[in-house]
Amino acid sequence: MIQGKKMLVVSAHAADYVWRSGGVIAKYIKNGAEVHVVVLSFGVRGESNDLWKKEGATYESVKAERFEETREAARLLGVENIEFWDLPDYPMAPALDENVRERLIRKIRDVRPDIILTHDKMGEDVLNPDHNAVSRFVFECSIQANSNGVRIEGTKTTRQMRLFGFEPHQTELSHFVPGELVDITEVYEQKVAAMQCFKAQSHLIEYYRQRAFLRGNHIRRISGEQSYRYAECFSSFFPVAGEELV
Amino acid sequence: MIQGKKMLVVSAHAADYVWRSGGVIAKYIKNGAEVHVVVLSFGVRGESNDLWKKEGATYESVKAERFEETREAARLLGVENIEFWDLPDYPMAPALDENVRERLIRKIRDVRPDIILTHDKMGEDVLNPDHNAVSRFVFECSIQANSNGVRIEGTKTTRQMRLFGFEPHQTELSHFVPGELVDITEVYEQKVAAMQCFKAQSHLIEYYRQRAFLRGNHIRRISGEQSYRYAECFSSFFPVAGEELV
Amino acid sequence: MIQGKKMLVVSAHAADYVWRSGGVIAKYIKNGAEVHVVVLSFGVRGESNDLWKKEGATYESVKAERFEETREAARLLGVENIEFWDLPDYPMAPALDENVRERLIRKIRDVRPDIILTHDKMGEDVLNPDHNAVSRFVFECSIQANSNGVRIEGTKTTRQMRLFGFEPHQTELSHFVPGELVDITEVYEQKVAAMQCFKAQSHLIEYYRQRAFLRGNHIRRISGEQSYRYAECFSSFFPVAGEELV
Amino acid sequence: MIQGKKMLVVSAHAADYVWRSGGVIAKYIKNGAEVHVVVLSFGVRGESNDLWKKEGATYESVKAERFEETREAARLLGVENIEFWDLPDYPMAPALDENVRERLIRKIRDVRPDIILTHDKMGEDVLNPDHNAVSRFVFECSIQANSNGVRIEGTKTTRQMRLFGFEPHQTELSHFVPGELVDITEVYEQKVAAMQCFKAQSHLIEYYRQRAFLRGNHIRRISGEQSYRYAECFSSFFPVAGEELV
Amino acid sequence: MIQGKKMLVVSAHAADYVWRSGGVIAKYIKNGAEVHVVVLSFGVRGESNDLWKKEGATYESVKAERFEETREAARLLGVENIEFWDLPDYPMAPALDENVRERLIRKIRDVRPDIILTHDKMGEDVLNPDHNAVSRFVFECSIQANSNGVRIEGTKTTRQMRLFGFEPHQTELSHFVPGELVDITEVYEQKVAAMQCFKAQSHLIEYYRQRAFLRGNHIRRISGEQSYRYAECFSSFFPVAGEELV
Amino acid sequence: MIQGKKMLVVSAHAADYVWRSGGVIAKYIKNGAEVHVVVLSFGVRGESNDLWKKEGATYESVKAERFEETREAARLLGVENIEFWDLPDYPMAPALDENVRERLIRKIRDVRPDIILTHDKMGEDVLNPDHNAVSRFVFECSIQANSNGVRIEGTKTTRQMRLFGFEPHQTELSHFVPGELVDITEVYEQKVAAMQCFKAQSHLIEYYRQRAFLRGNHIRRISGEQSYRYAECFSSFFPVAGEELV
Repeated sequence: MIQGKKMLVVSAHAADYVWRSGGVIAKYIKNGAEVHVVVLSFGVRGESNDLWKKEGATYESVKAERFEETREAARLLGVENIEFWDLPDYPMAPALDENVRERLIRKIRDVRPDIILTHDKMGEDVLNPDHNAVSRFVFECSIQANSNGVRIEGTKTTRQMRLFGFEPHQTELSHFVPGELVDITEVYEQKVAAMQCFKAQSHLIEYYRQRAFLRGNHIRRISGEQSYRYAECFSSFFPVAGEELV
Repeated sequence: MIQGKKMLVVSAHAADYVWRSGGVIAKYIKNGAEVHVVVLSFGVRGESNDLWKKEGATYESVKAERFEETREAARLLGVENIEFWDLPDYPMAPALDENVRERLIRKIRDVRPDIILTHDKMGEDVLNPDHNAVSRFVFECSIQANSNGVRIEGTKTTRQMRLFGFEPHQTELSHFVPGELVDITEVYEQKVAAMQCFKAQSHLIEYYRQRAFLRGNHIRRISGEQSYRYAECFSSFFPVAGEELV
Repeated sequence: MIQGKKMLVVSAHAADYVWRSGGVIAKYIKNGAEVHVVVLSFGVRGESNDLWKKEGATYESVKAERFEETREAARLLGVENIEFWDLPDYPMAPALDENVRERLIRKIRDVRPDIILTHDKMGEDVLNPDHNAVSRFVFECSIQANSNGVRIEGTKTTRQMRLFGFEPHQTELSHFVPGELVDITEVYEQKVAAMQCFKAQSHLIEYYRQRAFLRGNHIRRISGEQSYRYAECFSSFFPVAGEELV
Repeated sequence: MIQGKKMLVVSAHAADYVWRSGGVIAKYIKNGAEVHVVVLSFGVRGESNDLWKKEGATYESVKAERFEETREAARLLGVENIEFWDLPDYPMAPALDENVRERLIRKIRDVRPDIILTHDKMGEDVLNPDHNAVSRFVFECSIQANSNGVRIEGTKTTRQMRLFGFEPHQTELSHFVPGELVDITEVYEQKVAAMQCFKAQSHLIEYYRQRAFLRGNHIRRISGEQSYRYAECFSSFFPVAGEELV
Repeated sequence: MIQGKKMLVVSAHAADYVWRSGGVIAKYIKNGAEVHVVVLSFGVRGESNDLWKKEGATYESVKAERFEETREAARLLGVENIEFWDLPDYPMAPALDENVRERLIRKIRDVRPDIILTHDKMGEDVLNPDHNAVSRFVFECSIQANSNGVRIEGTKTTRQMRLFGFEPHQTELSHFVPGELVDITEVYEQKVAAMQCFKAQSHLIEYYRQRAFLRGNHIRRISGEQSYRYAECFSSFFPVAGEELV
Repeated sequence: MIQGKKMLVVSAHAADYVWRSGGVIAKYIKNGAEVHVVVLSFGVRGESNDLWKKEGATYESVKAERFEETREAARLLGVENIEFWDLPDYPMAPALDENVRERLIRKIRDVRPDIILTHDKMGEDVLNPDHNAVSRFVFECSIQANSNGVRIEGTKTTRQMRLFGFEPHQTELSHFVPGELVDITEVYEQKVAAMQCFKAQSHLIEYYRQRAFLRGNHIRRISGEQSYRYAECFSSFFPVAGEELV
């Protein structure tokens, strides 16, 4: 039951959450979930190669464009709760200090998510060290948010939530282990529209269209459900734990 | 939703399905699922050490006792559909020939299960080669049952079902990867009663009681659900594939 | 240097070599290599689901159609040396007996390949046990073909060749480890044409088109070579071994 | 031969060394070894959930209780050499700076241990990032203590010692690989008494009782030695290296 | 304590036990252990490349030479109990039938070994399928020998023994995991002499001399014991299980 | 084609690049490549055990000796472009700050290498934490050097290069995966001469001579090329990606 679920998405750069979980975000919102997105950086240094090719590009001009693009993409996915923390990237690890840690623990305790989506913890993103740093950081903050002894003024300890990892760009090279496949057929066009906000990256738009098609083939094959056409895939930080086998 | 689900359990020896999935079996039956059990062998050679210690024990006397015990255990779990195929064990691999293959494919197509439970495929049971042979065999038969081109008189191709592996006796040594934890609190006493049918194996009864307690701790920790007290754990042959993250 | 190389491709079923290595086969032939293909079975039971849906389909009618399709696909790839061994499939393992072993060793010694392409040995095809059986079998035969003590009338011991594994359908689930990516841009249309011979499997044609696109993205990213557009990926049975780092 | 051995135990939080190695510590002391324990933090933030539930709990009040509990537990295990370094926890990584590094190298060189026990290095504690940080840190300090070029006033280079990792709470999820199982039957009651000092954590006391029982089953099964009833399990940082196979 | 130990070595081909465990065998015999060796095949097809190069070599002539060589090597190692079962090789798997199984179970029950040495089970010998088949087979027979229900006229159930795997020729490629390193300095010259019996394989003699030197470096580094000069390495089928950490 | 290639070697300590890649460096230079070496530290604390044994050794005296040795070794290998960054070691991680990061990115952009050789990223050097820190750091800098958005005055973005990892001292314990074996027969004597510059480490000179011999055996076995006598082995950070299978 998606209705009433709370989800927190933590994205290292401005577009990660769109490429990797835009379908699930749109689907959850459409079906009555409450989705919050934290974008840690605009990816000015690490994920804006094409924007830097424009004549006269500066750190500020690139950042402004990234901001416009990602804000529009969020709107198209139906995201109303989004924050831009504007950290530096490439490398991001040095910026993930104790202030940002407290801020993220606070955010988790404010949202009280059932589900956290972030970069994959299982493996290691073979081409993007920022993603690995963010994954570990979000994981640690989630554990600390759940710990009764981590006292932060005005916050209340959370209960263990589910954590899932984004599929990285090059999956096998990053030792990605598929944990859950989710059908996104009903919001696929919405995801495509959101991806198209990143105008300078047409090759990535096509790339993630085709990946959704391939994952659609996989989910049909594994579930036997022929109506599924497009899917997104995530790793699981923990085993499934509940009342029955799923 | 357990109600209406169909489950097929394939057990290498007479007691495997009780120790390793007795809780889930009882829970599924109690909540309206249809459960079928196939016991491939009585485990006379490989899993009846204690019975052989009785004065005058013979292959037939051990087998008769195993049969009585497991039939009674099944009754206590609520199992009405159980078959004993009486294959030799230790080793079992040579007995898994093309006749048994056709028989199992036919069984799968007759039951048309949503879920198959059998020995773990992921790792390798470090102390029981029969379990490994059965796991591979059941997996292959499931693929073949689903294949339209495998024509067996009087049967109809099945649709891809879910497969789960039993937790082996020594989990880490067998490279077991927990995929799903299922709360069995409501049927825990029933499972204990079923285990007690295997009178000569009191150390195993205690062993699996304590394992259910440990897995109960794990499922509480992972789910945040404090009412769970006892659990069973299974590996997943495939990723979760469906409408939402679970 | 492709010119003058000898390649032997061993395919479990009628279409495996087309989906998984059609591009490399066509490229090697086009550039002067000598390519031999052995198709072990027609995949009548395991890989002809759609053909069996035709009214009145029989083992013989399905086989005849598979034969026509694969012969035409081979022709479009430029393959002149192809053999159909017509083994049963699903399961194929029982058919891989000592006669087939001698036949394959003889074939290897006749062809004297620099490269053998077959199903992936590294991992385990999660949905196709035949592929695993064939991979192990081809590997064993290659070792035996190279062994001076394996005396077969009229054959001469081969020298260690390179072995590569096909990318399976569901890569991560099969623990596939990418070893080498090969650009197939110049023969991509030829591969598409060959795939279209398998008329009943339009979803697979699209699937492998999109995979070639994704692998094209990966090879560009890893090599920095922007002219690559489509690629195929293989696992390596052995490390690269030669005069320099590649 | 335990008699005369020197052991250094490094525990991230106040109770880790009791749950995870209390049996081995008590056994070594009882049989004539010299055991030193360093408790890096009191676990006020990360491992005192229950104490924080008390009305009016503060950082200082929780710390005082943890100190009393762990001091008493150490006494019951027979530990005479114990130090409390009172580092912050959750997260602990930022506190493991160059001063703490020098202090730990000095400690290692003072004790000159044959054996170091600490958190598991092999895998990754799935629910406790502090444990991972401590494991890496202790390992690095041990290497540096053994290095002749790491000059610290008043210390003398140590010789390579053995390192072993604690079994984490959720073993498979933390990729724990059992390296050595040690019978603790003769001191089991002593360990239980020590665990009971942590009054607010009765569920953990029962958890680690049952784990000792399960590991007792495993050690009997693997060694064939029927007198073993309770055991603790550790990972090995290095292979066994000596005069014979063990 | 080596004195009084019983060891059973099962070697796939005529020289495997010499290259891979000749040092440990000689050391155990010299120090009062009882060592039994079973040589399953003479390796005529798979491991006699050089002998086949002799003019006029036949299966029988190669076999006779292998027999002379290995008998002499065994004598130099001090082995008095050795059996040659003369199975075919390359492939050996088809020969490991139920008769050979009963024969090996009987052998294990007759010898009642504390230790079984055979080919590595952990990984997969990347260049020798026979080794993998033998490893699995010996492991299965050991489990069955220990099982009270496996009744073989005139034999008595054994108690769980220790199993160790030979280091394969190409270790990393075979996923070999070093479990135990054993110093063989005192018998190193004896091992060299035994290896020199295999006259046609001078490159292997040098290879295994140098490996003993490298493993000697490793054992010194890990144990801190500077008197060790040469060593052999084995994988462990089970964790160490006993009275203390080793 | 080695001729014209550019290679950058980043070595944690003064001798790492000689033991682990001296052969490849000499071969590349001899055959017309341009090779640059960056030596991050002199290894005064971590890799100079023997020099510290000299009476009156000080940090400065040890450093001076290391400098002389490594400069002479570089000369013997034919290296003309070598820089000594003189960072502290044991631990080195704290020294790898944002200044060093910018310096290394600048170096990469100045050299514009086709190949970067550094410490192994795949596994984890089991006995040397500095090597792991350097591997991650070099990898991150390479990604950032290739990123258009990482703007550093006076530098120009590089194109994706190949990265390879040194074989560590204890390969299996460090989870080293051989990716490429390179024949170094023609420069073997040159490598031996360079190694002999490290006078205090005669055991290591012999160790790496014998390793080159073993890797020579492996490369012959895998390539079938009998003229190869000595080799070095490296891990691959990425799959091979190009025009053909190699």
